[in-house]
Amino acid sequence: MKVGEKHYHTIWLNADGRSVDIIDQRWLPHEFRIVTLKTVADVAVAIRDMWVRGAPLIGVTAAYGIAIAMADDPSDRHLDAVWEELNETRPTAINLRWALDAMRQFLRPLPAEDRAEAAYRRAGEIAEEDVELNRAIGANGLKIIREIAATKKPGEPVNILTHCNAGWLATVDYGTATAPIYMATEAGIPVHVYVDETRPRNQGAQLTAWELNGHGVPHTLIVDNAGGHLMQHGAVDMVIVGTDRTTANGDVCNKIGTYLKALAASDNDVPFYVALPSPTIDWTVKDGVKEIPIEERTGDEVSFVQGRGPDGAIISVRVSPEGSPSANPAFDVTPARLITGLITERGVATASPQGLKALFPERS
Amino acid sequence: MKVGEKHYHTIWLNADGRSVDIIDQRWLPHEFRIVTLKTVADVAVAIRDMWVRGAPLIGVTAAYGIAIAMADDPSDRHLDAVWEELNETRPTAINLRWALDAMRQFLRPLPAEDRAEAAYRRAGEIAEEDVELNRAIGANGLKIIREIAATKKPGEPVNILTHCNAGWLATVDYGTATAPIYMATEAGIPVHVYVDETRPRNQGAQLTAWELNGHGVPHTLIVDNAGGHLMQHGAVDMVIVGTDRTTANGDVCNKIGTYLKALAASDNDVPFYVALPSPTIDWTVKDGVKEIPIEERTGDEVSFVQGRGPDGAIISVRVSPEGSPSANPAFDVTPARLITGLITERGVATASPQGLKALFPERS
Repeated sequence: MKVGEKHYHTIWLNADGRSVDIIDQRWLPHEFRIVTLKTVADVAVAIRDMWVRGAPLIGVTAAYGIAIAMADDPSDRHLDAVWEELNETRPTAINLRWALDAMRQFLRPLPAEDRAEAAYRRAGEIAEEDVELNRAIGANGLKIIREIAATKKPGEPVNILTHCNAGWLATVDYGTATAPIYMATEAGIPVHVYVDETRPRNQGAQLTAWELNGHGVPHTLIVDNAGGHLMQHGAVDMVIVGTDRTTANGDVCNKIGTYLKALAASDNDVPFYVALPSPTIDWTVKDGVKEIPIEERTGDEVSFVQGRGPDGAIISVRVSPEGSPSANPAFDVTPARLITGLITERGVATASPQGLKALFPERS
Repeated sequence: MKVGEKHYHTIWLNADGRSVDIIDQRWLPHEFRIVTLKTVADVAVAIRDMWVRGAPLIGVTAAYGIAIAMADDPSDRHLDAVWEELNETRPTAINLRWALDAMRQFLRPLPAEDRAEAAYRRAGEIAEEDVELNRAIGANGLKIIREIAATKKPGEPVNILTHCNAGWLATVDYGTATAPIYMATEAGIPVHVYVDETRPRNQGAQLTAWELNGHGVPHTLIVDNAGGHLMQHGAVDMVIVGTDRTTANGDVCNKIGTYLKALAASDNDVPFYVALPSPTIDWTVKDGVKEIPIEERTGDEVSFVQGRGPDGAIISVRVSPEGSPSANPAFDVTPARLITGLITERGVATASPQGLKALFPERS
């Protein structure tokens, strides 16, 4: 999407045809830094230290990492070693493993001398497939926004609340939850987005707000506490969030706090949608609350907040007393009963086994 | 309550019998500073700039301000002028106006030469009445905690979630929502408190956590997003919050985000209690969502976070992009239907017109 006047992806092949450029997201929203990854080690650091984040983008970055490796040394031994090295960078990222496997399976049958070129081509295809997937999600979500817009007075925006960052920064372009929003903007439908700041890591305040700002989408930053009040007063027409994992029953595991917004939406008859590419559906899991283990992250993310200080430097400040421990569950599960619909690349499913099977009959 | 080994009130008469000492709460939790207020101007600044906060404490501080004024010049003219000066410091604080009126009505009939001594005595009584009120709330809430404790294995704590700071720092001692917690601790009942950080002003992280830490109550700081997940997994036995204003129907207007916790409690059959001194009941208002105007505060509270920086200084950092506007509604309304009970100084009422009238028949 646009950053000011220029259109960007989150990752692209450098003009040298060999290294790849990324947006180093650690400095957003304060600084827009582009970094060139030249070696596999560069790629590993970028994934491990979260210069790039978001499951789809991690996968694409890893795929380019394999390509860079093949340009150096296209041997089987090197391919396996780099697969291992990159796979360890973010052990729980499903797309990372998927992309590494896809690359290795594609490259293995090829003669060594053809691997580098083929690897760059395949990595580029994976990136382009991600964009197409998100565009399809966007087109399906756009229909819902269009219907709500039709109930509004001319010029009155559709008010959409979102949580965390399921935006283009988490993918190659468009994002998942944001794809319908960006496509509505492109279609000339007025939208306004309430952005939850999304404590503790503030992905809403730091990434989603920055994205929308860069692309010129009207938005307002709010604390995570505010959404219920806004819904009580009719200020929110719909909620769209992303998901890290969706169960076969339609339960959704997403950033901590999503469940609270779903409760508020349900209590105020606000439609609550989840946007997702179908690879995030885990067909082996049914009851999300009971079955999905929730990552417990360091309490320092709660006790400290990062931002730009008075002198312009990006620093962390402690907000809580030294003696007070913090707990930091990173995700929660929103039960299917609270979800109006799942916006996928194939269409909008009801959040139920029947709804999902109807869209994905090959899984029945 | 205790700060380490020593018991404190939030305000007390200085040894000189004329000035008053307060805890300057702006520096908590990082620094524990006691400040002496010697003049009416000192008192006005302390209230206006939130060195003291919390409705009961603001009222007591203003009462002492009148006493200080009377020691200087006990004339009617001065009494009226100081009433005006202090009343303007926090225009929406109900207790401020109440305490100023109480002091003026008490002093006006007295001869000028008796006013100073009488004013200090009356201010001291108002402070002591606040402590007694909170102790009565605590005793009534303690019964509920005791009942839950009886269902636990020996030594297993009662897990209580609270939002914002309705603690002793908002009153003279004990607090409202925290009074049952402190009294349970005194009674030897094991409790553990989940403290919502309470964005945007972080009163949970900065004040409630500090209070509990100082008094030795086991607690864990969490982001506001986490409470729903904890309730889904049985980690919370009850919720106790305070209130700024309670309607005759039992609706509760409290710090933004309270409503979301009430929804989660309801969805998971977790009892949700509100602790309140009866003066916070506004008998003229019925439907809180429709009738109570919500204060919209500056968006800077959302865009910036205060904390202690790496060099020890207390500073604000910007967390959001420069171009992103913020909205900052300060309170929300929790409908009575989500509230298990209202813990008052007279007992626990159901959150309903009938429940409140049964406890306060003089209001029928």
